[in-house]
Amino acid sequence: MSQPDASLGVAVIGYAFMGRAHSDAWRTVGAFRPDLPVVRQQVLVGRDATEVARAARPLGWAESSTDWRSVLERADVDVVDICVPGHLHAEIAVAALEAGKHVIVEKPLANTIVEAEKMVEVARSARSCGVRSMVGFNYRRIPALALARQHVAEGRIGEVRQVRVSYLQDWLVDERAPMSWRLRRESAGSGALGDLGSHAIDQVRYLLGHEVVGASARTQTFVGRRPGTDGVEDVTVDDAAWATLLTSGGAVVSLEVSRMATARKNSLQIEVFGSRGSLRFDLESLNELWVCLDGADFPTRLLVTEPDQPYVGGWWPPGHVLGWDHTFTHQAADFLQAVAAGDDPTPSFEDGLAVQRVLAAISRSAAEDSREIRPEVSR
Amino acid sequence: MSQPDASLGVAVIGYAFMGRAHSDAWRTVGAFRPDLPVVRQQVLVGRDATEVARAARPLGWAESSTDWRSVLERADVDVVDICVPGHLHAEIAVAALEAGKHVIVEKPLANTIVEAEKMVEVARSARSCGVRSMVGFNYRRIPALALARQHVAEGRIGEVRQVRVSYLQDWLVDERAPMSWRLRRESAGSGALGDLGSHAIDQVRYLLGHEVVGASARTQTFVGRRPGTDGVEDVTVDDAAWATLLTSGGAVVSLEVSRMATARKNSLQIEVFGSRGSLRFDLESLNELWVCLDGADFPTRLLVTEPDQPYVGGWWPPGHVLGWDHTFTHQAADFLQAVAAGDDPTPSFEDGLAVQRVLAAISRSAAEDSREIRPEVSR
Amino acid sequence: MSQPDASLGVAVIGYAFMGRAHSDAWRTVGAFRPDLPVVRQQVLVGRDATEVARAARPLGWAESSTDWRSVLERADVDVVDICVPGHLHAEIAVAALEAGKHVIVEKPLANTIVEAEKMVEVARSARSCGVRSMVGFNYRRIPALALARQHVAEGRIGEVRQVRVSYLQDWLVDERAPMSWRLRRESAGSGALGDLGSHAIDQVRYLLGHEVVGASARTQTFVGRRPGTDGVEDVTVDDAAWATLLTSGGAVVSLEVSRMATARKNSLQIEVFGSRGSLRFDLESLNELWVCLDGADFPTRLLVTEPDQPYVGGWWPPGHVLGWDHTFTHQAADFLQAVAAGDDPTPSFEDGLAVQRVLAAISRSAAEDSREIRPEVSR
Amino acid sequence: MSQPDASLGVAVIGYAFMGRAHSDAWRTVGAFRPDLPVVRQQVLVGRDATEVARAARPLGWAESSTDWRSVLERADVDVVDICVPGHLHAEIAVAALEAGKHVIVEKPLANTIVEAEKMVEVARSARSCGVRSMVGFNYRRIPALALARQHVAEGRIGEVRQVRVSYLQDWLVDERAPMSWRLRRESAGSGALGDLGSHAIDQVRYLLGHEVVGASARTQTFVGRRPGTDGVEDVTVDDAAWATLLTSGGAVVSLEVSRMATARKNSLQIEVFGSRGSLRFDLESLNELWVCLDGADFPTRLLVTEPDQPYVGGWWPPGHVLGWDHTFTHQAADFLQAVAAGDDPTPSFEDGLAVQRVLAAISRSAAEDSREIRPEVSR
Repeated sequence: MSQPDASLGVAVIGYAFMGRAHSDAWRTVGAFRPDLPVVRQQVLVGRDATEVARAARPLGWAESSTDWRSVLERADVDVVDICVPGHLHAEIAVAALEAGKHVIVEKPLANTIVEAEKMVEVARSARSCGVRSMVGFNYRRIPALALARQHVAEGRIGEVRQVRVSYLQDWLVDERAPMSWRLRRESAGSGALGDLGSHAIDQVRYLLGHEVVGASARTQTFVGRRPGTDGVEDVTVDDAAWATLLTSGGAVVSLEVSRMATARKNSLQIEVFGSRGSLRFDLESLNELWVCLDGADFPTRLLVTEPDQPYVGGWWPPGHVLGWDHTFTHQAADFLQAVAAGDDPTPSFEDGLAVQRVLAAISRSAAEDSREIRPEVSR
Repeated sequence: MSQPDASLGVAVIGYAFMGRAHSDAWRTVGAFRPDLPVVRQQVLVGRDATEVARAARPLGWAESSTDWRSVLERADVDVVDICVPGHLHAEIAVAALEAGKHVIVEKPLANTIVEAEKMVEVARSARSCGVRSMVGFNYRRIPALALARQHVAEGRIGEVRQVRVSYLQDWLVDERAPMSWRLRRESAGSGALGDLGSHAIDQVRYLLGHEVVGASARTQTFVGRRPGTDGVEDVTVDDAAWATLLTSGGAVVSLEVSRMATARKNSLQIEVFGSRGSLRFDLESLNELWVCLDGADFPTRLLVTEPDQPYVGGWWPPGHVLGWDHTFTHQAADFLQAVAAGDDPTPSFEDGLAVQRVLAAISRSAAEDSREIRPEVSR
Repeated sequence: MSQPDASLGVAVIGYAFMGRAHSDAWRTVGAFRPDLPVVRQQVLVGRDATEVARAARPLGWAESSTDWRSVLERADVDVVDICVPGHLHAEIAVAALEAGKHVIVEKPLANTIVEAEKMVEVARSARSCGVRSMVGFNYRRIPALALARQHVAEGRIGEVRQVRVSYLQDWLVDERAPMSWRLRRESAGSGALGDLGSHAIDQVRYLLGHEVVGASARTQTFVGRRPGTDGVEDVTVDDAAWATLLTSGGAVVSLEVSRMATARKNSLQIEVFGSRGSLRFDLESLNELWVCLDGADFPTRLLVTEPDQPYVGGWWPPGHVLGWDHTFTHQAADFLQAVAAGDDPTPSFEDGLAVQRVLAAISRSAAEDSREIRPEVSR
Repeated sequence: MSQPDASLGVAVIGYAFMGRAHSDAWRTVGAFRPDLPVVRQQVLVGRDATEVARAARPLGWAESSTDWRSVLERADVDVVDICVPGHLHAEIAVAALEAGKHVIVEKPLANTIVEAEKMVEVARSARSCGVRSMVGFNYRRIPALALARQHVAEGRIGEVRQVRVSYLQDWLVDERAPMSWRLRRESAGSGALGDLGSHAIDQVRYLLGHEVVGASARTQTFVGRRPGTDGVEDVTVDDAAWATLLTSGGAVVSLEVSRMATARKNSLQIEVFGSRGSLRFDLESLNELWVCLDGADFPTRLLVTEPDQPYVGGWWPPGHVLGWDHTFTHQAADFLQAVAAGDDPTPSFEDGLAVQRVLAAISRSAAEDSREIRPEVSR
């Protein structure tokens, strides 16, 4: 474990899409927040020795490795950042925590609730020894959404009544788009629901500070068979899902996720309606937040690039917009700050488990004629 | 009944919001479509003799009356246009049709399914004698939505898979907003659901040409008690409603209506996602339609003010935008054209009844734990 | 002249685009403002007896005529509304005023400054006898722009420094678009400059309450020859014009007008930047106004459909948007109200002349290498 | 000089706003384009030894220095990237080129035309020896604008006729904003004109491939005196500037720049109207491009995050938006690619000089009553 004020050695497991985004964050976080502990990019881990070695240097890593277990034994590694597919999360995270490493796990926490529960249990033990853990819902680090949460928490939109959240993509619109592991239940768990719905549910919990206490849902697979490498295959996950959620605070949430929403590339839209105001956000315009606060009648379009807004101060002057990948730098900074302060970062593994309990309730409601299901309460 | 090419005498029953909007339409339809039968604005009918007399002249009426029954006997009245509250629709419409008058009924068709069924039955008999009837879903006459329907019908967005429709208003956000007949079940039937949901459901049927075959729903009353003239009263209708609908064509529709959506004044938003394109509309920008057609990857913003687009040719040059009330003029024109041609106008009373069967299924699902309900099929 | 509380007989001269829009206004103004004097639509005047007779009834006129001089002699005509091409304005307006009729002249006031000066002179004499006159800059009657003017006048954006105004259309983009009277200097005076620039300049004067005291400009004809009915002809007016204007209040205005702005149908955009706020408007979204008031940092999007906003109260509930043609109804109402009150309506003929003096300064600057020209001051 | 396929050592001179943005780019370019020569971040140079030493490590630099001259002598430095204020550009750039180092100079090229001409002369000599030079107009590296240029170059909007370009900020709106070196002519050269106008003019040249051959202009200082550290001082540069430019290709450009545009934070807006289409861009939404191509009637909103669009392929999947600072990474990549290929990167010092000649013509026109001035032609 790290000493106060000392540098921290980091290992990232995985070097595909998420491994690359996290590598950028570790390489950049010092420029963003020079007040935090210095990061040493020790080792990038992957299965293919040639590929991971090739990827390591451009991404800023000192070394590469194919053996994550040996990496956990290194004294120069303080943080293990897990960016591999979900079914591998539990094994690596548990081992890393037990080795005394601080751990970040990309969302979703795990593919099954059993695995997630195990991870929560180990994280709790580790926490009591000062070992930190976090799940990587990076959209919590979007300045506009962090600002939105502040407004809700300060009561500036009053009591929240209605939330509309949709996460729409279009990469499966074409019936000829090929089969992949993401479209098989055994490897992916679910389709749009888990992949996109997990972000949406995390935002609801984050923005409102409420738990989900009821879910009524439907899922749909519009294109049931797709071309695979060995001929046509059945698609066994959902293409889209819909749910109505009731929260512990009495709000009703409509949720819609899809990979079939023609012309929506990566469109996470969130609207929150309260008794004294409202908020609106769209990921395709991630530097903007529309707000009605304190009883105002009409919405104001904020450009969230002012130095006093969350995360913005470490970057550029007003009007110089940020991109999607800056959120990972913010995430790394929040994690480092918690480690340095001896605090537990959020969202915790418990938060990750709570999201998965809601996903499970949605799946069950969809399987039972849409009747309302109450998610299990985490222990 | 009218002679071909002859003028048509019109009576409007009701002179409040809808009566005024319909009066404007009858006064203007000749300027919009001089090729149609000439309209004679014979008589405006209301309960308060002084008030209706005062209203009649500015709205273009030759006379006023307090007795709708006597108006039905007048030989100079060919068309009866019913703009009174919903619980009075059935009685007047049935009498008018039986008196051989063509009839327009403002939406919703009636407050109960029993009444609506009776109206359908009488309209069918009348139809066989050349007497025409129509229910007034005026949003079918918005040029952008009429164009959207054309695009769907021509297959330019392919097979429709997902529809998102929301109709959001904010006039009940304030807990101190007073009690009214619209907030009592006995007078209003339902709240946002019937008032706003009926428009939304009609659009789904209109745009897709599908029937609704399943509904899972929730309704909510956020402010349960409001100040009435005799003290605090219980609100007995919904403030907001949510539903997921399955259509006969295999599309899934998410529907959300509310009177508590802070900063949304009159926001009907519709998105249709198909296998080869998508469409997007917002009533607050009613001259615009966003389209992805024929496999295009990105949306194009049409300004629906071109002379070759539906309804536009009778108005102004490109870029000269229309307003909400122009839809009533289009509605009157479509009705006159059908009468002149000896055709049945749409939407028919059967369409109105179909909408109400969906509303009933939604109410029932909401009462039964959101489980999916199949709307009754009209005879 | 009219008696207080009596009805007013109206004649419209011209039944093309503008004649039709004005007719709609006279037919509708009573419904919009039943408190004003009742309008009698006496006579529609045009040159082609058959055509004008055919147009009259659908537009609500009791009679038609081909002889505007005889119409001026009728005792049942109190108001003469002139919607013919600009070179005919002076003769008819002068005769009508001398006959004691209240007069509205469509913009621009006249084709030459000499004619405009004559009209102003006669209008002044008539005014002293209680005869009213007005020039028809209908965009002053857009609720959003009337609200904008209120905000400026109340100091809510502070001292105005910069104004950006553009009026862009695209109907001449195609080189094959045919020759017409609008493209010949002798008939049209100028091109985009007079047609679109006059609206833009009127708005600057209206919103700011400043005079234009300096103009530097350029004009351009991009397509110099176009197909005419007798072969290819020279285009002798501008396709587009640009100017920088200095106002009496120290503001600088950039002005751009064009008929070659591909994909802009009828796009009048206005932005006003002050020391304590800003305003933004787009005619293609005419129910919206973007405002920064009282030192606010970010813009709020108003939907100008609230009952306490200018002109809105006579129409529909919030969120029910108005169209381009409603502005003529508002214009008629303002005119009637001034006549009834014995006041002079605005904009006056003097306002119309002031606009033309600015247009003349722009033309001269464009002809003199863009050097700054000070418009003549009206007497 | 670098060997083919070898790594390149880089020194950045300056560590304020621009020095930091360029440092981020050098640290990230390898991850973005692993195919390019490897960058060694050798040394960060600044005047304050403590501050530059503190800045160096978080920004990724191996060392810091206070002596730029000695850095030019280092064999391990191949590239010198100059991010200091404009009046220091010439001296350092000339020395660096003469030392055989490849050079990047932040825009604007220099504060005077004499300096810029000298720099061009030296760059030409160096070029013949394979030493490369570039001026840093980073907005050429915005994917949406690079795509826009492609569309223009391919003729998809036809012949360009009109361009509207504005660059509006609001940081001087408040009269109490303090005096600074940027508001004194001797240190800053000009105000909004040079700072913002240089970007705007570079874009016109870049997008159209035209030279500016005429300029008519006005400049204005709205707040003439501001509080300085030693009392109130005169502001001796412009707050805003306006120009109409004529290009060698016959297009007319309206240009407006301001630091007084209330509620515009960093708003560079560009519209290009051609004979067969149009383009629209706004820096506050830098991942979007609105296009009308090939004669289309209405604009399509592109999200420029597709892998086959310029610069996008090295980043993330569709819909994952980029930020302002990614442009510097693209710039570094383009520079490295040219060096590796033995090509001259663009924009060249000649391009930088051409922009300054246009700025000079604008200043002169503003001083001479707005009369049109023809910029000097570069030798």
